[in-house]
Amino acid sequence: MQEVWKEIDVYAKQWIKEAGQHLVSSLKQSLIIETKSNASDLVTNMDREIEQFFIEKIKDTFPEHYILGEEGYGDELASSDGVVWLIDPIDGTMNFVHQKRNFAISIGVYENGIGKIGLVYDPVHDELYHAQQGAGAFCNDIEIPLLQPSQVSLGVVAVNATWLTDNPRLDMRKMAQLVKRARGTRSYGCAALEMVYVATGRLDAYVTPRLSPWDFGGGMIIVEEVGGKVTTFNGDPLRIIEKSSVLVARPGVYEEVLQYVQ
Amino acid sequence: MQEVWKEIDVYAKQWIKEAGQHLVSSLKQSLIIETKSNASDLVTNMDREIEQFFIEKIKDTFPEHYILGEEGYGDELASSDGVVWLIDPIDGTMNFVHQKRNFAISIGVYENGIGKIGLVYDPVHDELYHAQQGAGAFCNDIEIPLLQPSQVSLGVVAVNATWLTDNPRLDMRKMAQLVKRARGTRSYGCAALEMVYVATGRLDAYVTPRLSPWDFGGGMIIVEEVGGKVTTFNGDPLRIIEKSSVLVARPGVYEEVLQYVQ
Repeated sequence: MQEVWKEIDVYAKQWIKEAGQHLVSSLKQSLIIETKSNASDLVTNMDREIEQFFIEKIKDTFPEHYILGEEGYGDELASSDGVVWLIDPIDGTMNFVHQKRNFAISIGVYENGIGKIGLVYDPVHDELYHAQQGAGAFCNDIEIPLLQPSQVSLGVVAVNATWLTDNPRLDMRKMAQLVKRARGTRSYGCAALEMVYVATGRLDAYVTPRLSPWDFGGGMIIVEEVGGKVTTFNGDPLRIIEKSSVLVARPGVYEEVLQYVQ
Repeated sequence: MQEVWKEIDVYAKQWIKEAGQHLVSSLKQSLIIETKSNASDLVTNMDREIEQFFIEKIKDTFPEHYILGEEGYGDELASSDGVVWLIDPIDGTMNFVHQKRNFAISIGVYENGIGKIGLVYDPVHDELYHAQQGAGAFCNDIEIPLLQPSQVSLGVVAVNATWLTDNPRLDMRKMAQLVKRARGTRSYGCAALEMVYVATGRLDAYVTPRLSPWDFGGGMIIVEEVGGKVTTFNGDPLRIIEKSSVLVARPGVYEEVLQYVQ
């Protein structure tokens, strides 16, 4: 990996850790349970604050880079040319407020649409999932092993119950078949974590019909680095400047699940 | 609360902490991901070991007490007379092995069917949820506030996607209506945690068609102590010597969800 990417990686890790510690501190200052109105305010403020923190750092250090962030303080991009940072300051905002866990900060750095650095930080567990293209993926200092092939009937699939109700994006009858076939299902409400859980084998697949680039940008690089598959429901590669359906799975499980969501 | 119950409570907390630390240590000795076959062995061994640990301690200290445990090393009970301990040594065994989180130890102590002491320990987060009848519920040292009434449309409901497929226990069409009405859904695969998450407001309701007494015994006392409701799908009280459907929810949400599962 070129020196420039090593440098970007060092900065990105430093910033994501700092931002995560800030998020955790903000939780400790409050009670176990927020009221609904306070909760909304807290999320809005923290989401904005963290995104602006990243933008400031990136623009200062790498003024030629572009940024796509959930809160919209970054750039508006019509193409994936150049170096693009995809940033979700808090993925799983409802969990952040009501559960004080099961949320993450996600960063993906892409060059001309190719994933170079993926970071997903779970600050409550102090777990930083990270990957550099071609250099393997890690959870903190532990290298994540390559994913071995498996099958749906042995696996746990993350899918929200919403997609088993009548909806315009997925065939609920096919989803029911998938759920019945799986060994178990889960739903955590945090795309970035559900992606890295596939990378570490905590889950075997994750299915969701509509994510934004900042939701999947970090996780995709990590999952692919350990041999997992990340595509649209049509089996196409995800594009980093548009919303997309997302299927994430280990080999074997991926090919099976694809048939249920296609 | 009588002295005898205070004494039981002190012992139960000491034992559950010790057992939890043992579980966490067993995880650290192994890699991030177990193979499927190793995983099954680990669960079986640890489940048995922890249950036998509790039985030995209880029988030594309180020889006249009865024990109902998941692994079946306790007593066979036809009635709820006397003091009965309901013990699940690892609730969420699949999570224990594959996720190394989202599992718990659950203990409920009942006298003539009345809940006296409820403990749910999440050893990964070192969070002990505990309640004594009439003395409030706590997460570690923090008292859990009484649950305020709410409604499904503002709430997060824990329900496994399985119950939205064709099944003999729940009407999938009604479940779909419930899911659509809720603000969000989650599924963690650990009944004891899903119950205490209702107690702390992390979730607003939890619906599951078939639990054993050791699954709900600890959580029920904690939830009821903060004003939450725990009943069968018919709205009846749970009996501690038989399997049961279980609906757990904060006030307001409970009455609404009951209509979908009845």
